[in-house]
Amino acid sequence: MKLLRYGPAGQEKPGLLDEAGKIRDLSGVISDLTGEAITPEGLAKLKTLDVSSLPVVEGTPRYGAPVANVAKFIAIGLNFTDHAAESNLPIPSEPVVFMKATSCIQGPNDAVVIPRGSKKTDWEVELGIVIGKRASYVTKDEALDHVAGYVLINDVSEREYQIERGGTWDKGKGCDTFGPIGPWLVTSDEVGDVQQLGMWLDVNGQRRQTGNTSTMIFDVKTIVSYLSEFMTLLPGDIITTGTPPGVGMGIKPEAVYLKAGDVIELGIDKLGRQKQTCVAWEKK
Amino acid sequence: MKLLRYGPAGQEKPGLLDEAGKIRDLSGVISDLTGEAITPEGLAKLKTLDVSSLPVVEGTPRYGAPVANVAKFIAIGLNFTDHAAESNLPIPSEPVVFMKATSCIQGPNDAVVIPRGSKKTDWEVELGIVIGKRASYVTKDEALDHVAGYVLINDVSEREYQIERGGTWDKGKGCDTFGPIGPWLVTSDEVGDVQQLGMWLDVNGQRRQTGNTSTMIFDVKTIVSYLSEFMTLLPGDIITTGTPPGVGMGIKPEAVYLKAGDVIELGIDKLGRQKQTCVAWEKK
Repeated sequence: MKLLRYGPAGQEKPGLLDEAGKIRDLSGVISDLTGEAITPEGLAKLKTLDVSSLPVVEGTPRYGAPVANVAKFIAIGLNFTDHAAESNLPIPSEPVVFMKATSCIQGPNDAVVIPRGSKKTDWEVELGIVIGKRASYVTKDEALDHVAGYVLINDVSEREYQIERGGTWDKGKGCDTFGPIGPWLVTSDEVGDVQQLGMWLDVNGQRRQTGNTSTMIFDVKTIVSYLSEFMTLLPGDIITTGTPPGVGMGIKPEAVYLKAGDVIELGIDKLGRQKQTCVAWEKK
Repeated sequence: MKLLRYGPAGQEKPGLLDEAGKIRDLSGVISDLTGEAITPEGLAKLKTLDVSSLPVVEGTPRYGAPVANVAKFIAIGLNFTDHAAESNLPIPSEPVVFMKATSCIQGPNDAVVIPRGSKKTDWEVELGIVIGKRASYVTKDEALDHVAGYVLINDVSEREYQIERGGTWDKGKGCDTFGPIGPWLVTSDEVGDVQQLGMWLDVNGQRRQTGNTSTMIFDVKTIVSYLSEFMTLLPGDIITTGTPPGVGMGIKPEAVYLKAGDVIELGIDKLGRQKQTCVAWEKK
């Protein structure tokens, strides 16, 4: 299944994408796509639905992030060998863990705001894991049973805040709009082998990142098992798993960063694509 | 006002502490103490209540964390000069920011679980700021208008996970039970000068930490203003502001860490006190 949320920001309704590519409304079935709705029991219930009987949503509504009320937005750093190299950082011996503020989560095609005064806003195409079942001290063999599905994420990052402001990485990862997620939560059964997915990202039509989840240093089951030793993962928690080479910070001879007007497009096999326009910060 | 949540874990009801020290039930007024209930408008409504007309809660129920559905649990590191020194780390030139997983939040007197295999679980008495009003790029002068009140927090930390596991600090800060909060959310008006509060922590009856919020490197208004440049703070978000000297890691000649059976007691002037017993990890 491809589960989604559609409608204006803050008023999203749950839906799913049918085989013809039409959005079907799920709001008569569940109130929202929260963690509770995507537990094994929740997904089993959704799978029994007769999709053709669900109302078709007309037009082309905005997509929201496909999971509501995300409690934790956890991130893995330097998880592709080539990206560690371009960042001038050693290949980690165990996963690098940081957190993105949940307030940065937004729809896949919403504008990315360059923070006030920022000079180093950067892109990162990433595979996101969506937890479907509570995970505490789970083994690698058990790990995938705790995953509801996968999402496409742009782990937008401000490199000065992340690296040069004397703290841990969290400072440069959670600015508002730095977490475009979606368009869909694609359930595990439909994704198949999650370690064989092509990844790409363009800025203003120029290919910047090309990768494949097959070259992750720590794979999905390792990440879920590892994190579950440090915190209990809950249904609806999202883990973004690191980016392949080609971020702006790594471009030679000089880094390239995002500015207002730039257009970012990105995608991962089976998980859909996103398109964001960058805009300047304005006081709200 | 002293706002609180009481009852079994996961089934807490909202309440307040009256001047006689009795819990009064607020569940007829608000459904829970969420961010929405502690906005300036929400607090204004609570202040108009005739406390004597609210039902008295009999007995001595468990306290839960005094805020429900916390979206972000942000933390400031090394915010007391003497604690930076005992940690063998330089005094930061700007706030060190990390995040605690919201899944670690628990009641003030609930047991602290020593993680499986942990040898370096440590204590940290801290002042917590509770946001009451959305804050994005607010100045220091505006900052306190965005604070609903304050809470006592034990920022329980696993030093090996935090420092020796090759990542950012988040790994050692968010284990289950590492976030005892409460007993009360004390509103700003009742706290008065938040930079003049004594702090203390005992382990097994022995005084380990003594401090005062007057010696914080970055004060409350600076922290709120600073963080609001990196992420939008939302009502119900909690910021824990760093610990004074006396953590287990800093004890000479040899560090002292928590083990099953240890009892931690801690308090901050006006914010109440907590008591936790440490227990060994067990598979749930």
